[in-house]
Amino acid sequence: MVVVAIPIFNGFTALDAIGPYEVLHRIPGVRVEFVSETAGLYLADDGHLRVEAPVCFEQVPSPDVLVVPGGPVKNLPLTNKAFLDYIVKVHKTSLYTTSVCTGALLLGAAGILHGLKGTTHWAAFDNLASYGVTPVHQRYIRQGKIIMSAGVSAGIDSNLEVAALLADETMAKAVQLAIEYDPQPPFDSGSVGKASKEVVDLARKITAALPSLQNQ
Amino acid sequence: MVVVAIPIFNGFTALDAIGPYEVLHRIPGVRVEFVSETAGLYLADDGHLRVEAPVCFEQVPSPDVLVVPGGPVKNLPLTNKAFLDYIVKVHKTSLYTTSVCTGALLLGAAGILHGLKGTTHWAAFDNLASYGVTPVHQRYIRQGKIIMSAGVSAGIDSNLEVAALLADETMAKAVQLAIEYDPQPPFDSGSVGKASKEVVDLARKITAALPSLQNQ
Repeated sequence: MVVVAIPIFNGFTALDAIGPYEVLHRIPGVRVEFVSETAGLYLADDGHLRVEAPVCFEQVPSPDVLVVPGGPVKNLPLTNKAFLDYIVKVHKTSLYTTSVCTGALLLGAAGILHGLKGTTHWAAFDNLASYGVTPVHQRYIRQGKIIMSAGVSAGIDSNLEVAALLADETMAKAVQLAIEYDPQPPFDSGSVGKASKEVVDLARKITAALPSLQNQ
Repeated sequence: MVVVAIPIFNGFTALDAIGPYEVLHRIPGVRVEFVSETAGLYLADDGHLRVEAPVCFEQVPSPDVLVVPGGPVKNLPLTNKAFLDYIVKVHKTSLYTTSVCTGALLLGAAGILHGLKGTTHWAAFDNLASYGVTPVHQRYIRQGKIIMSAGVSAGIDSNLEVAALLADETMAKAVQLAIEYDPQPPFDSGSVGKASKEVVDLARKITAALPSLQNQ
């Protein structure tokens, strides 16, 4: 059995976690566990939706794959010792240590990224650089067993790659078909390079308007 | 305030619900409520992840937008009177009545699709046809206020369209950028037309292997 741990916290972005979960849990022999410092319900970044972490870090001490989701920077547990210690400990024996969106900042705060290239949500490139990482505009980037994904929805793309690594390419393609991931967005505004200044400014504004939830 | 209701049930597919939620909750003035027959925690289709519906149908009697997620057909509440009655009642006054994946079968079972074209997960086209619907291979299809989406991940695409309808195109593009939805899947196997027979067979097999959860 391959165990995937997804550590969550109050104010996390739900799709950061659910995208990878939806890809990985469909692979036969893979179990995905939402975990946190204490078992319970955790608020997503809208301040209303709650998702369960049925187990705590100690109950999933050495998962094969770690998927660290992100959220608005103000919500990240960047100074939570238990959270960062879990990343450090799991990374010692993991097959893959991965992040989605600003989850990369948590890998950075845990001290496992120094000197690497990396990616995260486009609005958090400066934050990522502060951990000694050179930010690059890629959908996801793999260096050895560390895989970082761009913002929110990028965790679906990167985890199809993880699916191929854990199983094989046929299985990854079957999962892609099972979740009918044949994207056809009605607009082409999903990256900073493609969006107008007006859209970039509005995207920053609606993200800043999300509530502060770290200490809920 | 625009209220979006997402009715969930044991065995629902998490991304069917979280994709639309992640798009819509970011629009200022929009509140997304997960609802169900009774308030509580509901199992996703892996049989392990639980997501909260903090309120019951009676507490969100007339949402502006209804987003009905799907799941493996064996898990759908196709004969649950309370669930179907909620769809019928909400549809009378909704701005938009929408489905993701096999959520379309729930709209069909509620009797609101007869004579329409429609879409759903590729593996459920025959089921959809049994409700008097002509299935079409489109990522999503809008007829008046009814919008149906293809499988699982298609709810992200369709709800960017809903975002433009509820707000405007600039807002929809800003949400697309906020969730960095610039898809770059590593494989091109997300629709039946693009996948090999081997991949289609494996996709059916891993979907069939998901647990039966309707009566949990």
